[in-house]
Amino acid sequence: MMSEKTVARLSLYRRLLKLFSDENRHEVYSHQLAEVVKVTPAQVRRDLMVLGYNGIPKRGYEVAKLTECIDKFFNVSKGIGIILVGVGNIGRAMLSYFREGKPYINIVAAFDLDPDKIGRVISGCQCYHIESMPKFLNDNKIRTAILTVPVGQAQGVAEFLIQNGIKGILNFTPARLKLSADVFVEDVDITMHLEKATYFSSIVTK
Amino acid sequence: MMSEKTVARLSLYRRLLKLFSDENRHEVYSHQLAEVVKVTPAQVRRDLMVLGYNGIPKRGYEVAKLTECIDKFFNVSKGIGIILVGVGNIGRAMLSYFREGKPYINIVAAFDLDPDKIGRVISGCQCYHIESMPKFLNDNKIRTAILTVPVGQAQGVAEFLIQNGIKGILNFTPARLKLSADVFVEDVDITMHLEKATYFSSIVTK
Repeated sequence: MMSEKTVARLSLYRRLLKLFSDENRHEVYSHQLAEVVKVTPAQVRRDLMVLGYNGIPKRGYEVAKLTECIDKFFNVSKGIGIILVGVGNIGRAMLSYFREGKPYINIVAAFDLDPDKIGRVISGCQCYHIESMPKFLNDNKIRTAILTVPVGQAQGVAEFLIQNGIKGILNFTPARLKLSADVFVEDVDITMHLEKATYFSSIVTK
Repeated sequence: MMSEKTVARLSLYRRLLKLFSDENRHEVYSHQLAEVVKVTPAQVRRDLMVLGYNGIPKRGYEVAKLTECIDKFFNVSKGIGIILVGVGNIGRAMLSYFREGKPYINIVAAFDLDPDKIGRVISGCQCYHIESMPKFLNDNKIRTAILTVPVGQAQGVAEFLIQNGIKGILNFTPARLKLSADVFVEDVDITMHLEKATYFSSIVTK
């Protein structure tokens, strides 16, 4: 199984490859990929070997072939439907963000408890009552959810998601979820990131 | 100097301590802090030693004293003013998010180019034209900025920020910024996190 770090890097490589492709550049070198993700070129070559890409590193990798390879890894051609739970500020921002040009991952439904939101299309996404989620997940074979509920509801909603077939959660709440080990949780802890940024800003000398 | 990982953990410890304090719990054990950040209790003890906290780990750490210590590290009592550049979807979400109960870090101004936004209060924050930023940063001695502009503008705006005294950037754009080494950039790469979540959701067996 790929490590989390490798998967994260493949996502970033893929983005650089798209940029190269947009600029009609046909070859990419491991040091260029390495620079973007702040690892060594050797690490890039190992990642791509694990991926099963057979390139000739000395001449550079073919952008098109390598893109195809990573696209296949992420199952891009199939498209992936996910849901979002909690249509507050962050939830709405995510709906808008992923609506704009993220072609293969689509938020196919949003869920909330607020009667003012249910039944409406918010930032391009249909919003349903959370009670209708189990049927929706089952009918659509959804495995991933974005969690943007208030922190106090995070654990309960996460458990509800998992009871209904969700296998991975992108957690924007500051809650540290306690879930069974076969569920993948990716925390995006915005406050922690901001505290890091302010701390390191403050100690840099003028 | 503290490592990035240590600073990130201190931020998370601090959050758990607040939770404990809210629940009137007076002692915390290294294994409890360890669980939250997914490291060993020994790592927690090392972090707190580096911080200069002298506890008696066997009896647990005092919540109040440890909180005080971490608060001091993050300069909580002084309060920290930061700015945000780019009042789009993510920008607005961040304004709302940090308006709600993040007591010591305040977004004191937002900047944009859009005439419809300038001069208005958006999600509780006054929005100014980006041209007025240099004077504002200088007058208010701001060192940290949240970057939520469109990806194509990210590098240019980041350079402009740094020319005007910014030392740390919380970068929500997918751009990989190329800046001088004395500037701290904290990337929050939402697409990468989502790709990780969908990838690991898909490989978990039913």
